[in-house]
Amino acid sequence: MATLLDALETPAPLVDLERLARNLDRMAAFAAINGLALRPHIKTHKSTRIAAEQLDRGAVGLTCATPFEAEVMSEVCADILLAHPPVGQRAHRIAALPPQVRVTVALDSMRAIEDIGAAAKEHDRRVQVLIEMDMGMHRVGVQTADEAIELARMVRRHAPLDYAGIMFYPGHIRAHVDAQDAAMAQLAGRLGVLIEALDRAGVRPRVVSGGSTPTAWRAQEIEGLNEIRPGTYVYNDRTTAGIGACEWEDCALTVLATVVSTAVPGQAVVDAGSKALGREPMRGGADDGFGILLEYPEVTVTGMSEEHGILDLSRSDWKPAVGERVRIIPNHVCIVVHLNDLVYGVRGDVVETSWSVAARGRGLRQATAWAETR
Amino acid sequence: MATLLDALETPAPLVDLERLARNLDRMAAFAAINGLALRPHIKTHKSTRIAAEQLDRGAVGLTCATPFEAEVMSEVCADILLAHPPVGQRAHRIAALPPQVRVTVALDSMRAIEDIGAAAKEHDRRVQVLIEMDMGMHRVGVQTADEAIELARMVRRHAPLDYAGIMFYPGHIRAHVDAQDAAMAQLAGRLGVLIEALDRAGVRPRVVSGGSTPTAWRAQEIEGLNEIRPGTYVYNDRTTAGIGACEWEDCALTVLATVVSTAVPGQAVVDAGSKALGREPMRGGADDGFGILLEYPEVTVTGMSEEHGILDLSRSDWKPAVGERVRIIPNHVCIVVHLNDLVYGVRGDVVETSWSVAARGRGLRQATAWAETR
Repeated sequence: MATLLDALETPAPLVDLERLARNLDRMAAFAAINGLALRPHIKTHKSTRIAAEQLDRGAVGLTCATPFEAEVMSEVCADILLAHPPVGQRAHRIAALPPQVRVTVALDSMRAIEDIGAAAKEHDRRVQVLIEMDMGMHRVGVQTADEAIELARMVRRHAPLDYAGIMFYPGHIRAHVDAQDAAMAQLAGRLGVLIEALDRAGVRPRVVSGGSTPTAWRAQEIEGLNEIRPGTYVYNDRTTAGIGACEWEDCALTVLATVVSTAVPGQAVVDAGSKALGREPMRGGADDGFGILLEYPEVTVTGMSEEHGILDLSRSDWKPAVGERVRIIPNHVCIVVHLNDLVYGVRGDVVETSWSVAARGRGLRQATAWAETR
Repeated sequence: MATLLDALETPAPLVDLERLARNLDRMAAFAAINGLALRPHIKTHKSTRIAAEQLDRGAVGLTCATPFEAEVMSEVCADILLAHPPVGQRAHRIAALPPQVRVTVALDSMRAIEDIGAAAKEHDRRVQVLIEMDMGMHRVGVQTADEAIELARMVRRHAPLDYAGIMFYPGHIRAHVDAQDAAMAQLAGRLGVLIEALDRAGVRPRVVSGGSTPTAWRAQEIEGLNEIRPGTYVYNDRTTAGIGACEWEDCALTVLATVVSTAVPGQAVVDAGSKALGREPMRGGADDGFGILLEYPEVTVTGMSEEHGILDLSRSDWKPAVGERVRIIPNHVCIVVHLNDLVYGVRGDVVETSWSVAARGRGLRQATAWAETR
């Protein structure tokens, strides 16, 4: 017997199965048509089930941010990129992945080369290495071609590491898609110069990996780029729709919430707060609130406590009643997923299935000196 | 054999056991001396182990925000208040708590009375009811004494519900403790008038429950208040210390993180981002960053991605090396705990124990029509 939406407890993350399938198909087709290797970042969904659907549709492998994500994804995937510097314990945990998994890491320091080199040796496995470049995001990544060349040569001297190419994350390009031309052209120009310099130095990159969800759709404009790593496209969110990188109808994940109070005039309170939605502002400012209602897009979540979301009714004719249910399109879907253990798959009002956010958390070990002192 | 801090993977939440014990002792002694019932809000720690320590020290019961928190805490506590309107499925789940648990709910609507009344009848149990008052927070709670009186009378007509009193959350009082006098006096004044009105109407509150961590320490100034529900005091955080409601030395929880990149000049990047620290600003603005370093308090986390934290080094002489470890005092500790499954208890450099964040998550059920379609 099918479960209906009404039977679910709130707050609960819902995925529209039709929209999800459409999003998966569209990016797979885009990558195939443009001859780009698609290596989706699984941080958005953290679920083996969605990962398997990405691989079925032709993804060459997966991108992960944490060792635990990589461990979970190794159940369904034999080609994993860790897009986070493999330093310290992290290097050891990555090198300990099942031996059949082809492991690639991205790094920007000598220390990371030493750490992942030692770990790879200890675990007797080859590890592919991408040099991470800062192409304008100013988060991680080396600044110049010379630094990249030096690290690439270092990698070649550290068997069992293999120098594979370069990687960057163009997260700084987040203007509306209609206003990205200059930034995309600048990125393409810088990348062209960089690849040429690496080539001249004898460390031509085989892999040139880039592409957030917004820039992935324009990846074909960037000469030399041959791999993209979009994450958000599977579910999309208010930010993605807001900058025109998807249509509103492509937002596949909403948070089902219940109106629990209308006692304070001018507002309604739902049971989804920062512990269900995340306190994620639009583009760095909280003025636009933390999400909008699917059914009443003029209503935003303007305030939040941990378990309360404040809906501003000032621009709406809607008169919510306590007990009424709404669906919220979150600002940043990756955080919503990270806050949940389970996601429901729905078609219309029917809850067709549910799946685990299996790679949520860290997979941390208990302290060895474990003692429940009580 | 004891585990040392160096052996832990990062990011990881650490609790200084000495500070924790001191924080627990101090609030318990304060409540006892002032004749206040202490009913700690467990949202901060979500752990049965800490809850048991609170009860051992004389807490009369616990406060929870979600049904799952209440279910987990019923393992160690037989007197639980749900400080969130019991509407819809939430009412049913609360009424289904083990029969030996004395259950209290707070509410501000007829609909909530009907829902919890029906659920209590179905589960054949009594439920204590507090009327939630808005004393200035403007989140939930009825606005006037007349509304409170009407709801209290309604509760009395809905057996097996018992009218027990009133509750409020003074979260709007969050100025520095030295600047709270006027707000506290206003609160005391309003509460006095309210209690008198209820008394005259024949619905004198037996329980008058209030008190966030900052205002709990001044609860004795409020005539008629007889119960406090602080949460944050067990761990404290940058916000609590910032407003003077604790000393910096009372911040018991830090996030252990590793420097993973120093490639971009002027900053260092650690492996704790919004998925480990939460994107919680100080007092509504992100200008102060998302946390400070325990060892270098002049260094703040000024930017975050999901798994990256950007440390601004502009005000510091510290020259971090990749691989170095730091401890971050978070802005809002309740969110950090909610992002983790496990917390480590440390004394100096020794990891003495660890415990589960057992009430993290929602305890949502799989869809009945569960089918792993793959």
